[in-house]
Amino acid sequence: MKVAIIGLGSVGRGVAEMIAKKDLGIRVTGLADSKSGCIDPAGIDLFRVLEKKKKSGCCGDKNISALDVIRKAPYDALIDVTPTNAMTGEPGLGYVMQAIKKKKHIVTSNKGPIALAYKELRALAEKNGVALRYEATVGGAIPIFHTLGHGLAGNEILAVFGVLNGTCNYILTRMADEGLTYEQALLEAREMGYAEADPSYDVEGIDAAIKLVILANTIWGNGVKLDDVDRTGINLLTPDAMRLAEEEDCTVRLIAEAIPKKGFLRVAPRIIEKSNPLVVDGTLNAITIETDMAKEITLIGRGAGSIETASAILGDLLFIRDRYVERS
Amino acid sequence: MKVAIIGLGSVGRGVAEMIAKKDLGIRVTGLADSKSGCIDPAGIDLFRVLEKKKKSGCCGDKNISALDVIRKAPYDALIDVTPTNAMTGEPGLGYVMQAIKKKKHIVTSNKGPIALAYKELRALAEKNGVALRYEATVGGAIPIFHTLGHGLAGNEILAVFGVLNGTCNYILTRMADEGLTYEQALLEAREMGYAEADPSYDVEGIDAAIKLVILANTIWGNGVKLDDVDRTGINLLTPDAMRLAEEEDCTVRLIAEAIPKKGFLRVAPRIIEKSNPLVVDGTLNAITIETDMAKEITLIGRGAGSIETASAILGDLLFIRDRYVERS
Repeated sequence: MKVAIIGLGSVGRGVAEMIAKKDLGIRVTGLADSKSGCIDPAGIDLFRVLEKKKKSGCCGDKNISALDVIRKAPYDALIDVTPTNAMTGEPGLGYVMQAIKKKKHIVTSNKGPIALAYKELRALAEKNGVALRYEATVGGAIPIFHTLGHGLAGNEILAVFGVLNGTCNYILTRMADEGLTYEQALLEAREMGYAEADPSYDVEGIDAAIKLVILANTIWGNGVKLDDVDRTGINLLTPDAMRLAEEEDCTVRLIAEAIPKKGFLRVAPRIIEKSNPLVVDGTLNAITIETDMAKEITLIGRGAGSIETASAILGDLLFIRDRYVERS
Repeated sequence: MKVAIIGLGSVGRGVAEMIAKKDLGIRVTGLADSKSGCIDPAGIDLFRVLEKKKKSGCCGDKNISALDVIRKAPYDALIDVTPTNAMTGEPGLGYVMQAIKKKKHIVTSNKGPIALAYKELRALAEKNGVALRYEATVGGAIPIFHTLGHGLAGNEILAVFGVLNGTCNYILTRMADEGLTYEQALLEAREMGYAEADPSYDVEGIDAAIKLVILANTIWGNGVKLDDVDRTGINLLTPDAMRLAEEEDCTVRLIAEAIPKKGFLRVAPRIIEKSNPLVVDGTLNAITIETDMAKEITLIGRGAGSIETASAILGDLLFIRDRYVERS
């Protein structure tokens, strides 16, 4: 199986490293970062490219762009690991559309295109007979979409409840365990590298809401948008509220929730019993899927990390290999 | 897609009911219980058969046996939902082998054949180019094998730790929460219908060990047997041991554990921290899979139940439909 990788940040490097180290029958024939690219139909030497990237900041030739790689490299599947822009979806959205039109399968970790243009991309992929997979966009290493699409195939999905943002979960865990204020816990999260200098994307629930939109569109295909999510962050939460929850053997978690029959999509801090499987510690993610046959299924795992996200991407890639490429 | 169902106990009836109620494109052309069978290439009226079974105890014609159905009905996949016999694997083992030799795909909930003859069945299935799937044998509704085989494809599985027996987990939960003795909790489990009159299969860890053998053979393909599992039940556990665990913010759970590098397979009561995701309440099941890329992934769900088990069987069936039957 031949693949092209666009994006060589932390996740892209993790994917390249794992493909290089593991004997999965995957050959990388095209590769691009934001400044350069390389194409080699015989297979790119990934260790050499990763070394070059580390030393020079570039993976290849500055005269070769990502679009050149998408248009000219020979590949079965495109791996889009460009950074998320939740407003425009670019540059990933354009790359993904170009590749689908060339009848290439898509594996992406980029939330932008899937949250903004799911219906269009799904229709385009079907028209061109290719797979569109994005396991890495929600819940990091947790195989949520495999579970929804295959493990629970035949089930009606009644609701999903997720802890989908590790930064918020870390802050809430520290507030509960150590009695910290929100500001103290945020400061700690920054020191640990779990929160950005501007944490609003995480703590205001925007990241969780984007993931909820991706989940909702996957399950119900109803073309919801970020604006459809009723959203409250954790930034106004007080130690008093946390203490009240603790007194009832409960705690507070930022829960992303979709219940189609009630017609709502919500991200908000919720008081939940400590014995609920969604109550996970630190930066972990968790999701409970409610269905008609299996009832409640909960998945817990790491929501971020270079190699953890590479796991989700390789799972998608090998699924495409087994279902499409081996038979073509 | 055409299927034959062998076995019409609680799980078989659940499967038949779900196929009848859901529009999945699945036609049942053969059906047998232990005393009778029916064959109809145009598709059996499942509601009528379920009604007949309820009234008379038989699903069909006493002159038609399960083997007749397996040999003569036209079908793509056999659903084996016969009862588990952990010593011989029969009658399921013979049925499954017959069907594979006729180049039929297999979906089974029967632990016997998979625990006793995994290597032989896998080899036979490969030789005949058919799928052999058994999601329902371990963890009820939890899609464990989908996760191991597809969601975590590309990962090296380093270890599995599972709470795989709901009866034991119920007893341990009640001992911990209410300070009951083992005998009191067992009596309660019997009254709730969670324990058999002879509970030894569950409380001595045999059921969990059989499931561990199925997991180990799936992951490492090394042909282990029930005798290879170091096994201790929960029947000698005292309230004192439980109290000591509780004092350390821990509890006791029957954990089935496979770590290939250490070379051991063990089922035993273990002291674990209450914050560990494997600590689930009541009859729930849980499994933690440790891998090189995704690290720890935990799945939690219902380990038993007619419709819950039907969920696992339909997941397997639809996987076969999508990967094999639609393309043939």
